[in-house]
Amino acid sequence: MSHADRILMGPGPGNPYPEVMEAFARPVLGHLDPDFITLMDETNERLRQVFRTANPLTFPVSATGSAGMEATFVNVLGPGDVVAIGVNGVFGERMCDVAARCGAEVVRVEAEWGTAIDPQALLDVHPSPKVIAVVHAETSTGVRNDIAPIGAGKGNALLLVDCVTSLGGIQLEVDDWGVDLAYSGTQKCLGVPPGLSPVTVSQAAIDAFVEKSQSWYLDFTMIANYVTGGGARVYHHTAPISMLYALHAGLGVVLEEGLDEVQARHQACGDRLQEGLVKRGFQLFAQEGHRLPELTSVIVPADRLPDGVDEAGVRHRLLVEYGIEIGGGLGPVAGKVWRIGCMGHTARERNVTMLLGALDEIMG
Amino acid sequence: MSHADRILMGPGPGNPYPEVMEAFARPVLGHLDPDFITLMDETNERLRQVFRTANPLTFPVSATGSAGMEATFVNVLGPGDVVAIGVNGVFGERMCDVAARCGAEVVRVEAEWGTAIDPQALLDVHPSPKVIAVVHAETSTGVRNDIAPIGAGKGNALLLVDCVTSLGGIQLEVDDWGVDLAYSGTQKCLGVPPGLSPVTVSQAAIDAFVEKSQSWYLDFTMIANYVTGGGARVYHHTAPISMLYALHAGLGVVLEEGLDEVQARHQACGDRLQEGLVKRGFQLFAQEGHRLPELTSVIVPADRLPDGVDEAGVRHRLLVEYGIEIGGGLGPVAGKVWRIGCMGHTARERNVTMLLGALDEIMG
Repeated sequence: MSHADRILMGPGPGNPYPEVMEAFARPVLGHLDPDFITLMDETNERLRQVFRTANPLTFPVSATGSAGMEATFVNVLGPGDVVAIGVNGVFGERMCDVAARCGAEVVRVEAEWGTAIDPQALLDVHPSPKVIAVVHAETSTGVRNDIAPIGAGKGNALLLVDCVTSLGGIQLEVDDWGVDLAYSGTQKCLGVPPGLSPVTVSQAAIDAFVEKSQSWYLDFTMIANYVTGGGARVYHHTAPISMLYALHAGLGVVLEEGLDEVQARHQACGDRLQEGLVKRGFQLFAQEGHRLPELTSVIVPADRLPDGVDEAGVRHRLLVEYGIEIGGGLGPVAGKVWRIGCMGHTARERNVTMLLGALDEIMG
Repeated sequence: MSHADRILMGPGPGNPYPEVMEAFARPVLGHLDPDFITLMDETNERLRQVFRTANPLTFPVSATGSAGMEATFVNVLGPGDVVAIGVNGVFGERMCDVAARCGAEVVRVEAEWGTAIDPQALLDVHPSPKVIAVVHAETSTGVRNDIAPIGAGKGNALLLVDCVTSLGGIQLEVDDWGVDLAYSGTQKCLGVPPGLSPVTVSQAAIDAFVEKSQSWYLDFTMIANYVTGGGARVYHHTAPISMLYALHAGLGVVLEEGLDEVQARHQACGDRLQEGLVKRGFQLFAQEGHRLPELTSVIVPADRLPDGVDEAGVRHRLLVEYGIEIGGGLGPVAGKVWRIGCMGHTARERNVTMLLGALDEIMG
């Protein structure tokens, strides 16, 4: 079957870098082949650079970003452990669900959708949580939550951060900010198709692992024997070889351009898009000062929809007439906001120009 | 980075079909794009054909085969549930580990490595297990366990079968044999790189789902709203788009050649390999009558190793001098057996000729 190509300006996946698509063509190796082990080690070293960490236990979980979330939770939370979670969107809610399935006691700190979590409120909500968890870049709202002050005040707690939409797109300093567990996805600002979830784990987190994770597949202790086993790699599960090639290549693109430069490119695209939308009279949804450049949430301008076309109809026209995908809202803001991503290879100013032009043509 | 290509004759991955590698080049679509939904529906329909099932809930889990194992267990087993498991290799052992992490009571029926599980013993070991679980094709030993008699005698139990190395390679009749939950991997007899785990789930299994799975990522109830949601697809997690293209293409190759013909090709390669090994004086490890054609286990001929070369050294020479990967033994048979796969695109008689020739050259 064939299908058209798209400019992927939704909440992810974004368009992959051309070098990533080329990497898929590489011959498949076995997961214990010395050449593959070399590639895996290089991939993990590249991940340390983009996570800005020296954590030895840094690797891609063999599944998508939500599995990275589950992996970080199930290795440090068991029945009765207390976790304080900031909730201001879908992914904070998902953290609560995942943590509850570990048997943990979940203490929530909420903020209205579109606004940021108050770091002090999260620090104050419980005297001695085992884990404090928060989403860095809320993909459902386009809001950035501040991480550094939480790390500074975390005390003996572990800090667990969702970096799915932040890694590579905005500043993230795992070591300097005191992040103990972080997970991401490949399909956002790394410019790789979905399929893997990079994670990084501090020594403090390793020291606090539960005795036996409820998940075999996501058991970091067992996986560590394969990914950081030095000379003797103990088979755990079969690594997703071709996706690893893709991630290795995507990280190569990011590091060759320079992490700062890639983040600046995301910022420039986001600024241009948000200015263009405001200039046209659209209202941005996310709180000023906490707007993500890589994911812009904008309130659907109900009074400017073409006759007989609802917001889904506009997105449909963008998709079929222009080959541009943007995202709708989730949960309480379904039908009320659009989510426009500029991530990875999508983060090019020409794409912003194209989308604004298409919106002008459709909405006048 | 570049690396050589390999003829993958280990326990998996096998070589992917050329059409599969081409599919990776397709433009990435969003996971809610109508064109992608069509491709996903087609993929699931193709999976029903190779699983030989009409189960509506048939789809690839977004992770590798071991996640398929965990997914099938965590959706039907909770604390105190009884599961009878046949154990005659690594993957039966892994089932016990996964089931125990669900809090289930595990009742084991063992058979010596290299021999098959006695179906009646598995049926008799407990009067009323919720689940009976067994591996169809034990990748660690090359043994086929009989499934049909277990399905015929299962009574009210659910039958859960590991089909990682059997799907596409040998006869498997999910519906006719009464299999309620089955999982597989893409990197074996389907001729696709590793990364997804096709599963199929019967209505009886759905009716017996635990109230809430301990895994969010593998929660079949939530995933079903996305993969079988008809017109309204509820986002659960971001599908691994490019791997789906690869699986769709691999299944297309299998079904175009014909499932029976593909199985016959695996059988012909296995027969030719096993005959060639026996003719050379090698001893096969798996019990006669239960030997898998797609995965041959052979006892390392200690008396025929070249001077100063151990079994790992022979495998290393195959890899670096010939570009052929074969597998070593796992667990108790590490160092004692080799595992030689002919799976997917690797299952070509020319590859058997090449490997036997290379062994002749190395071992005289």
